[in-house]
Amino acid sequence: MRAEGVGVNPGLALADAQHVLQQQAFSRLLGARLTDFGGGAATLEIDVCDDLLQQNGFVHGGVLSYAADNALTFAGGTVLGASVLTGGFTINYLRPAVGTSLVARAHVVHAGKRQAVCACELSMVGDDGELSLCAVAQGTIRAVGGQAA
Amino acid sequence: MRAEGVGVNPGLALADAQHVLQQQAFSRLLGARLTDFGGGAATLEIDVCDDLLQQNGFVHGGVLSYAADNALTFAGGTVLGASVLTGGFTINYLRPAVGTSLVARAHVVHAGKRQAVCACELSMVGDDGELSLCAVAQGTIRAVGGQAA
Amino acid sequence: MRAEGVGVNPGLALADAQHVLQQQAFSRLLGARLTDFGGGAATLEIDVCDDLLQQNGFVHGGVLSYAADNALTFAGGTVLGASVLTGGFTINYLRPAVGTSLVARAHVVHAGKRQAVCACELSMVGDDGELSLCAVAQGTIRAVGGQAA
Amino acid sequence: MRAEGVGVNPGLALADAQHVLQQQAFSRLLGARLTDFGGGAATLEIDVCDDLLQQNGFVHGGVLSYAADNALTFAGGTVLGASVLTGGFTINYLRPAVGTSLVARAHVVHAGKRQAVCACELSMVGDDGELSLCAVAQGTIRAVGGQAA
Repeated sequence: MRAEGVGVNPGLALADAQHVLQQQAFSRLLGARLTDFGGGAATLEIDVCDDLLQQNGFVHGGVLSYAADNALTFAGGTVLGASVLTGGFTINYLRPAVGTSLVARAHVVHAGKRQAVCACELSMVGDDGELSLCAVAQGTIRAVGGQAA
Repeated sequence: MRAEGVGVNPGLALADAQHVLQQQAFSRLLGARLTDFGGGAATLEIDVCDDLLQQNGFVHGGVLSYAADNALTFAGGTVLGASVLTGGFTINYLRPAVGTSLVARAHVVHAGKRQAVCACELSMVGDDGELSLCAVAQGTIRAVGGQAA
Repeated sequence: MRAEGVGVNPGLALADAQHVLQQQAFSRLLGARLTDFGGGAATLEIDVCDDLLQQNGFVHGGVLSYAADNALTFAGGTVLGASVLTGGFTINYLRPAVGTSLVARAHVVHAGKRQAVCACELSMVGDDGELSLCAVAQGTIRAVGGQAA
Repeated sequence: MRAEGVGVNPGLALADAQHVLQQQAFSRLLGARLTDFGGGAATLEIDVCDDLLQQNGFVHGGVLSYAADNALTFAGGTVLGASVLTGGFTINYLRPAVGTSLVARAHVVHAGKRQAVCACELSMVGDDGELSLCAVAQGTIRAVGGQAA
């Protein structure tokens, strides 16, 4: 699946997007890092620590849903600009999330002038460095105000 | 909408469910409390603090998605028993989440022997104590192992 | 759950909405009728005939998803006006759809100026006239062009 | 995204799956054809005729949601066997559906023993033979009874 309608360049660089992420207290609380941003895609990473687990020692589904929400939003921001919000999303969990870090890779599936549909793959990095797909998400990002590109 | 097929009583009390929640490190990190559990419904509450906000001062969407995920799971647990997992869910955000606390009320829409479809309303409590609906979610909870009621 | 923000009156009557439905060839093919429209809600009904079944004699899931899509859209239209489109929706199937007719009741959960989040309950009417809930859906309706109320 | 856990071979051939499709009266009504089936993927095609349109001359969203539902189910069937049902799915519409035929291509994202998460791309074939992506869907397929592979 290729991103479509992703010709718009809102002029946001990775550093700008990282600055926005750092302004999110909740993202700082979870230790989220933006490691890729641009061209209709964004990658959010979180190192696993005890605070992020549920009762069975897996990463809590709420951490994955946060990462899906935010990665989808940033992916949408690559084509819609800095003023965006997530209208909603769907997440399907595939297997228990075990590993050293979580990688949420989102990309724009289709973008109009004021809205983008994005998809996200959430994988865990194992001790061997291999990625294991743990959840997939799909959502809608909207430009707000008059600031969309 | 009434819960259907919710005649099963897995014998879990509110205190039992609260114990499970306390075993979730991520739920402790967010300060989540389970204030209702039973009869096909569960309520999760979170007091708003600075750590839960995004860059505009609203509660981060990831907090709401965590609350939806967990409230849906506990609601499913009232009919399926303690060993459940969330297969996936959909969340739609309705308005910015502003207030002193978040209340996520989930209920079973339909339950089979090993799966339940649940819905969740996420509201913010304002300074005046009024509830403001901020998001709605719908998801599927499954019994795991041989432990479902 | 009450519809919110449903103060807008786009001036569409049931007869107007029924006229729109009759202009949908696919809705005519399925024999869909609009039996309620207004005040943030809409009801679509379809009499079951052999053409709507799948291999086990149940109403095909695609008939339910059509009804969800269209009922959600008309519910959104009660507050957004005649020029609306469905951005997307989620449907969860609860049990096999058996009965003499399908009733899809949708209502607005929250409406802004140009977008509404709606929910839909899909029930089958049994031989005894009782409604049996078979699926639930949740989706987003958007006003298009300059015609939204 | 690669299908995972798709090592199971339920022994269904394209001809078997086409036979199942032909037993669905609703699929015959819409003129659906199964043109690919196997290896964790399935493709459903529908030639556009007037009966499938809505009031603006586009293919009705309900046709797309039917195609998503059914393509997802058949994709799940390639790994779970013939006795499957769709638990639910999410569809996002990207642009008006215009063209000579609809192609719904679904694939398994992840499969367990009794459940598969599948994704579907719905495209229209234009007069020039080019595919235009019109909607994306994601859903859960479950094996029923004792017949799953």
